[in-house]
Amino acid sequence: MGMSRKKLVIDTDPGIDDGMAVLIAMNSEEVDIIGLTTVFGNVYTPTATRNAFKLLEIAGRTQIPVAEGAQRTFAGIEKDWVADFVHGDDGFGNMNFPDVKGEKDSRSAADFLIELVREQPGEICILALGPVTNLALAMQQDPSFARNLGELVILGGAFFVNGNVNPATEANFFGDPEAADFVFGHSAKIKVVGLDVTHSCTFTGSELKGLHGKGRFGTFLSSITAFYLKYHQDSYDMDAVYVHDPAALAVVLWPSLFTWRPGQIRVLTESVARGMSVMDTQLKRWNRPHPWTDRPKVQVAVAVNAQEVTQRLLQRMGA
Amino acid sequence: MGMSRKKLVIDTDPGIDDGMAVLIAMNSEEVDIIGLTTVFGNVYTPTATRNAFKLLEIAGRTQIPVAEGAQRTFAGIEKDWVADFVHGDDGFGNMNFPDVKGEKDSRSAADFLIELVREQPGEICILALGPVTNLALAMQQDPSFARNLGELVILGGAFFVNGNVNPATEANFFGDPEAADFVFGHSAKIKVVGLDVTHSCTFTGSELKGLHGKGRFGTFLSSITAFYLKYHQDSYDMDAVYVHDPAALAVVLWPSLFTWRPGQIRVLTESVARGMSVMDTQLKRWNRPHPWTDRPKVQVAVAVNAQEVTQRLLQRMGA
Repeated sequence: MGMSRKKLVIDTDPGIDDGMAVLIAMNSEEVDIIGLTTVFGNVYTPTATRNAFKLLEIAGRTQIPVAEGAQRTFAGIEKDWVADFVHGDDGFGNMNFPDVKGEKDSRSAADFLIELVREQPGEICILALGPVTNLALAMQQDPSFARNLGELVILGGAFFVNGNVNPATEANFFGDPEAADFVFGHSAKIKVVGLDVTHSCTFTGSELKGLHGKGRFGTFLSSITAFYLKYHQDSYDMDAVYVHDPAALAVVLWPSLFTWRPGQIRVLTESVARGMSVMDTQLKRWNRPHPWTDRPKVQVAVAVNAQEVTQRLLQRMGA
Repeated sequence: MGMSRKKLVIDTDPGIDDGMAVLIAMNSEEVDIIGLTTVFGNVYTPTATRNAFKLLEIAGRTQIPVAEGAQRTFAGIEKDWVADFVHGDDGFGNMNFPDVKGEKDSRSAADFLIELVREQPGEICILALGPVTNLALAMQQDPSFARNLGELVILGGAFFVNGNVNPATEANFFGDPEAADFVFGHSAKIKVVGLDVTHSCTFTGSELKGLHGKGRFGTFLSSITAFYLKYHQDSYDMDAVYVHDPAALAVVLWPSLFTWRPGQIRVLTESVARGMSVMDTQLKRWNRPHPWTDRPKVQVAVAVNAQEVTQRLLQRMGA
């Protein structure tokens, strides 16, 4: 893509740290945001869609299309659980902003993504910040989709660290394990960034408070993050928040600030560890085929220059 | 136990590195070996029993009782697979030593262990070098067993690294996942050492060759390890072997050379990662109960002074 800006679609379930990531992207010359697609996860899908419109309103970018995504998991299960204890019932820290009017794209998120990738093969970067249900549907509906993607950056998984839903499982993959296992079985064009790396990226309570009054988005971001900070204080005994979604955006913006390892991934769909991600690190020549053998090799983030990433992200949150 | 020697039973599936561990124990003043119990894993159980007698013969300790263990998994499955490609059909690198006569203890391994622990509560250390089937049976048959154990050191698992059977699973837990999950649900008196640590402990090909002619066991150990070295060269591209079982013995001998972290463990009995071990590292205050919540906390080896451990082990192999 040379010097041109990456054409970026953000698939998102806003969500407080989704809100950070989307607004940072709005302040980033490296990307041209050509659509938002929505999914359940931090909130139910209709709330995610409403919050996507809210973010576009705040950014003054209401011409960007929003395509609403799945309300059921890839296996067809109606969602009856979201992370409201992390993000608030409204997804934005129970700030209860007035409703935003917005006209949804007539297509489903999967159809929207399929058409974009068909029209501009190799050009579209998708940043998936929630469960990857829409991506799995797109790959299932159009066999050329995975091949014609430019790049798919996925936030999810906990490869060599504990999860955050339970000791095994990270929240996004927990939200739709079948979708995640399907996606990792169907595309090599994936960069995945999980808790191994995002747990190194934090903003302190005072950094978040300090955003108030700064730039176009600082006051909004400072206000919605108070609830998110409280959750981290209670759960992790720390006066700071993990910056999951912004760290995944940082992969799109500055991939060289991360250390990558090729791996083949399974996401478990059964057992007490349902939703767990397990990668083959390619360190052994296996004696016999196993359930990872035929998987495409994707790039897994195993380390990050956290100081540089968080500094750049924080600067753009207040810009 | 003060200055007295630990009373040690080794539950084992010899196995080349089991052979190393048992003979190193025979050269260790810190322990008094009061029995061997056998199990499938590296070999089928009858071969394990035969090899246990062989080790006692080599050590001149034929008065030590050998109680034969389970031939089926804890779930009742007949074993139809052992690691002959690692240890040879005979478990000792296809050296095909002449048969050894030995009189098995009249009790099963589980009954043998139960009686010992009943007679000497708090005094018996068990080192489990294979699948923990016998231990699970003992805990199931006698509810006081887990409580009255002195200490149970288990070799098994891969907590934050890839497995060695497949990317998820280490061989001992793969051999009997139901047994492993049962044992970690029933005792807090466990120290577990997995691939996270044993993959740091290696002997080079020349160190193994150098044992020839040394001490009481050097020639035997040098000869059986040639096959094991070949497996490592083929599988890991290295001219060295992993010292799994001796490293687990080192936990009995010198626990302070390891770094320990408390954890609650599940071993997966379903999914493509069947046999995988997952520990809660206790870094998060969980929002709701999950399948680890009620598990006893055990000690998990997360690091090792590998140079000191391997140096001491090698010295005793040639002593």
